[in-house]
Amino acid sequence: MTTSASSDVLDTARRAKAAAAELAPQPSGVRDAALLAIADALRARTGEILTANAADVARARDNGTGEAMIDRLTLTAERVAAIAADVAHVVTLPDPVGEVLRGSTLANGLEIRQIRVPLGVVGIIYEARPNVTVDAAALCLKSGNAVLLRGSGSAYASNTALVGVVRDAIGTAGLPADAVQLVPGESRDSVKELMRARGLVDVLIPRGGASLIRTVVEESTVPVIETGTGNCHVYVDEHADLDMALRVLVNAKASRVSVCNSAETVLVHAAVAGAFLPRALSALAGAGVTVHGDAAWQAAGDAVLPATDEDWAAEYLSLDIAAAVVPDLDAAVAHIRRWSSGHTEAIVTRDQAAARRFVAQVDAAAVMVNASTRFTDGAEFGFGAEIGISTQKLHARGPMGLPELTSTKYVVTGDGHIR
Amino acid sequence: MTTSASSDVLDTARRAKAAAAELAPQPSGVRDAALLAIADALRARTGEILTANAADVARARDNGTGEAMIDRLTLTAERVAAIAADVAHVVTLPDPVGEVLRGSTLANGLEIRQIRVPLGVVGIIYEARPNVTVDAAALCLKSGNAVLLRGSGSAYASNTALVGVVRDAIGTAGLPADAVQLVPGESRDSVKELMRARGLVDVLIPRGGASLIRTVVEESTVPVIETGTGNCHVYVDEHADLDMALRVLVNAKASRVSVCNSAETVLVHAAVAGAFLPRALSALAGAGVTVHGDAAWQAAGDAVLPATDEDWAAEYLSLDIAAAVVPDLDAAVAHIRRWSSGHTEAIVTRDQAAARRFVAQVDAAAVMVNASTRFTDGAEFGFGAEIGISTQKLHARGPMGLPELTSTKYVVTGDGHIR
Repeated sequence: MTTSASSDVLDTARRAKAAAAELAPQPSGVRDAALLAIADALRARTGEILTANAADVARARDNGTGEAMIDRLTLTAERVAAIAADVAHVVTLPDPVGEVLRGSTLANGLEIRQIRVPLGVVGIIYEARPNVTVDAAALCLKSGNAVLLRGSGSAYASNTALVGVVRDAIGTAGLPADAVQLVPGESRDSVKELMRARGLVDVLIPRGGASLIRTVVEESTVPVIETGTGNCHVYVDEHADLDMALRVLVNAKASRVSVCNSAETVLVHAAVAGAFLPRALSALAGAGVTVHGDAAWQAAGDAVLPATDEDWAAEYLSLDIAAAVVPDLDAAVAHIRRWSSGHTEAIVTRDQAAARRFVAQVDAAAVMVNASTRFTDGAEFGFGAEIGISTQKLHARGPMGLPELTSTKYVVTGDGHIR
Repeated sequence: MTTSASSDVLDTARRAKAAAAELAPQPSGVRDAALLAIADALRARTGEILTANAADVARARDNGTGEAMIDRLTLTAERVAAIAADVAHVVTLPDPVGEVLRGSTLANGLEIRQIRVPLGVVGIIYEARPNVTVDAAALCLKSGNAVLLRGSGSAYASNTALVGVVRDAIGTAGLPADAVQLVPGESRDSVKELMRARGLVDVLIPRGGASLIRTVVEESTVPVIETGTGNCHVYVDEHADLDMALRVLVNAKASRVSVCNSAETVLVHAAVAGAFLPRALSALAGAGVTVHGDAAWQAAGDAVLPATDEDWAAEYLSLDIAAAVVPDLDAAVAHIRRWSSGHTEAIVTRDQAAARRFVAQVDAAAVMVNASTRFTDGAEFGFGAEIGISTQKLHARGPMGLPELTSTKYVVTGDGHIR
């Protein structure tokens, strides 16, 4: 393992900036042809990709990596084919670049148009799964951006092989190969260099665990889009259909625990606690979920562990849930305001006024009314693709598709207009 | 002059966050009534505002402040009336909050709407002119945001009086007074506290000189919208109407030199340099402008000073301009790519293909075709109001009106949908 010299990362970023300038004016036909070339090349060169991946997997096994992580790291011919199919799917999505968002002719005859343009150079910092390497490259190319990929050290050989295939393919298709680059080096230093490449990199998108995201947000001078941390709540209102509430709760918590849109806390209105808690405890136990509850939940079930502030704050990503009874909707909102990560919050209610109040007062990227938190997802929302889920308020909030990978430019046309 | 204790600024931010939560669900009628109450109160209490302002002005004179700065600081009954009228004008603008940006019903029956919501707490860091205090407060209230105002120490008494009037007025109108607060303290420390109030403040907008903006961008952990630095270019193409080019150039440079949308560099295609340079030198000299030119410009006029890299980089904000002759459009674009601050770039040409190429390849918030750079302005663009001009690519680019002071929220409604 080598440590990247400072200049390596910056040189990479400089080449990306030059490639972005070349890429931006390319029409969508050229970009789409490059994407199809990538899909073809992935299929044609699956063998060398699998060889590189096998080296990563062997190294991970030698390092005593757990089976779940090994599985995320492992590529097969089938998985490479799926990655290629995903790239081909991106071709079918509408091109965001060039879309006219606003336009008018002013009283003085000046014509103003606000058009979508690529962001420029997008840096993605991510972990484990090598499929993200190709996904991110495809979405950035489709939206006219150059991309700097900084994947996990454990997937370095796989990522090197994949990026090699992608670069060859886009070069053949007439795009600058440097529009897609792996950030050199496997050490943490290369991430630091990337975070300081202001003026060369237009945005950094960290995808991964909460600690990675926090580090990037705090230390980066490059603008950041914060993604993914999800401490999501399900609030069961006084006027909830309790059958529906049970269904939504179990789905939100237990259908897939390792994802950011799974529920981590359930709040129940006191008026229905007596009826709901026993049923919820039974259903959650049936799904293998451990409940960390307040006094009311503890009183309702022997297996309930006592909840502390750490539980209210936790993004478990496991078969655990925090649980509280609240006196009213306002208290539910107050709890969510205090502990939410601003990802997704859900209310189950038949009361229109309660739903309106919850939607208006809860501050999150997505608010669900009588639906599982698990629906906050680019594919579920019909975006066709997703580069991540933003939990910040600037630029993009919620699932980010292709339009969120663009900026805008005002084009003003006159015939010699002066002020 | 007192130095603010750390906790003062954070307490202010905490109160702002609570006020923002109260403010967000208020309908536009309530917010508009509060704005009208502010306008009335400014008119009714002009006397005490002028008394406070007189103290600032006296202190500034004692400190030997220059007349231009004294003028920017000084309020008169007429100026207060103009500020009140501006507030009343904000009432007439469309409310961005609640606008549905996208909406659809998915195949499974889930209804998705993306709606505009306030950002929450907006921090504005600005200099000198006390009218910004009221303008910024009005725009933030109109868009449903709480605002933390951190003006110049030199206007502290004026700002304290103005914010007092605003707070009383909105309190009477039923909004939380803490939706508008002055950041306590006049020292630089209070700016630092504000920049570290991540989680309490949703966005910081620095308005002022390049060094203030650079400091905030580099040191803030709160998300920042970078505003205002303008190293704007006028490119006179081979196929320019030279009369038009002369008119646009002189207007862009000399109509108002202290603003970010004034031109700082002129680039001339070599094919028209012989015809254009003598006329440009004469017109610029007539407007009192000093030219800092390359060899070709120096050869064309005795008064031309030699340009260095510092000139290409300079935002003069004075009666100075950097000037170069370029061999072709590509060289003009390359020069702009290297030195531009990404604010506004202009081309003067009769050639449609050249205009298209310039627009596609220049990376700036606004690109002017046959129009002065001076048009990049919220009022000129018809936005009715402007909180600043963003030179960054995330969230907002170019003049920022009310919609740019909002975020979005997805509201998803089902009838018990699970995945």
